[in-house]
Amino acid sequence: MRKIPESTVRRLALYLRYLEESSAGGQVTISSAELARRGGTTSAQVRKDLSFFGSFGKRGLGYPVAALTGRLREILGLKSPHRVILIGAGKVGAALMHYPGFAERGFSVAAIYDRDPRKIGSRWNGLLIRDVRHLERDLRREPTDIAIVVIPATAAQQVAERLVSAGVKAILNFAPVQLVLPDSVAVRNVNMALELETLSYDLTVR
Amino acid sequence: MRKIPESTVRRLALYLRYLEESSAGGQVTISSAELARRGGTTSAQVRKDLSFFGSFGKRGLGYPVAALTGRLREILGLKSPHRVILIGAGKVGAALMHYPGFAERGFSVAAIYDRDPRKIGSRWNGLLIRDVRHLERDLRREPTDIAIVVIPATAAQQVAERLVSAGVKAILNFAPVQLVLPDSVAVRNVNMALELETLSYDLTVR
Repeated sequence: MRKIPESTVRRLALYLRYLEESSAGGQVTISSAELARRGGTTSAQVRKDLSFFGSFGKRGLGYPVAALTGRLREILGLKSPHRVILIGAGKVGAALMHYPGFAERGFSVAAIYDRDPRKIGSRWNGLLIRDVRHLERDLRREPTDIAIVVIPATAAQQVAERLVSAGVKAILNFAPVQLVLPDSVAVRNVNMALELETLSYDLTVR
Repeated sequence: MRKIPESTVRRLALYLRYLEESSAGGQVTISSAELARRGGTTSAQVRKDLSFFGSFGKRGLGYPVAALTGRLREILGLKSPHRVILIGAGKVGAALMHYPGFAERGFSVAAIYDRDPRKIGSRWNGLLIRDVRHLERDLRREPTDIAIVVIPATAAQQVAERLVSAGVKAILNFAPVQLVLPDSVAVRNVNMALELETLSYDLTVR
């Protein structure tokens, strides 16, 4: 299969959500126009996005909801749950633990780490907050694909390097710093203040 | 001034953070190499990014921290604070209220709205949760540039349209849906589950 552009991957994830809602509502087929509305795009773009992985649907009949849902979950690697660890037991970390979207999509936080002795040993949702010094030891025993990094910018690069050395393949980074890591590691950045700042900039040029 | 590309705006916000930290540490000048490290880029890119708004710094001497900080804050529209309203008093909304990055950067949440009668009338950080039915009335009295939308996907488009009709110019959208709004409105999307899904996809192709 060809490598799918990132913009398409993001739309596929939006289509998937809409398909799941439609399926829950008993809908059997769905039109490209409906998917387009949810993905903020056009019917032509939906057809192009879905064409990346073979032909789906019949002209005039729409797409079969169940089959398309299964195929999108497969494409996105969501068929089996992902073990996720959270680095940083601060306020944003706490919010993420409760973010309903994660568990719904098969991402379960399996361990939390911090370096603050006052936090280490306490529990969130029954999950022990562990000492980040034991990261390497734990990851040898409990291989993990994805780490969510929610620590200050000054500490993020070093922790990210330790995660990568210990076999983590993907990092969701909330620290306001661009991590410099090997190309083999997938990194996504979420920076809410930075999003507001780009909005603030947008306001100055309108 | 030319319109600055989005990737540059995001790096400018990262440089600004680093400059503020450096300034707090007493540093007077800063090299493009240091800024490049923080922005995950090269010295050449830093010089190019900063060239968008005139010449700064002298070859070999680095950039003056104080002057560059002021200029970046001006460029990003951060010289005066922004009034922000939060739509949706759920768990993610609660986390955002406590997100330290917002207040630090001059974004202050001035009002919270929800449609749940059990939430309306209670207080978060002393701030009353208001009935979303009064949005238009309130916005006439309290003009607001930026709204943060943290409600389910099914309700987001309609609320966004109401916000735009009532004069809101910029929306930070946490709902997993692409909002369809006039081009004159700035929209940024933050979708943490979607970020994890794109990471999950990245893992399937590595």
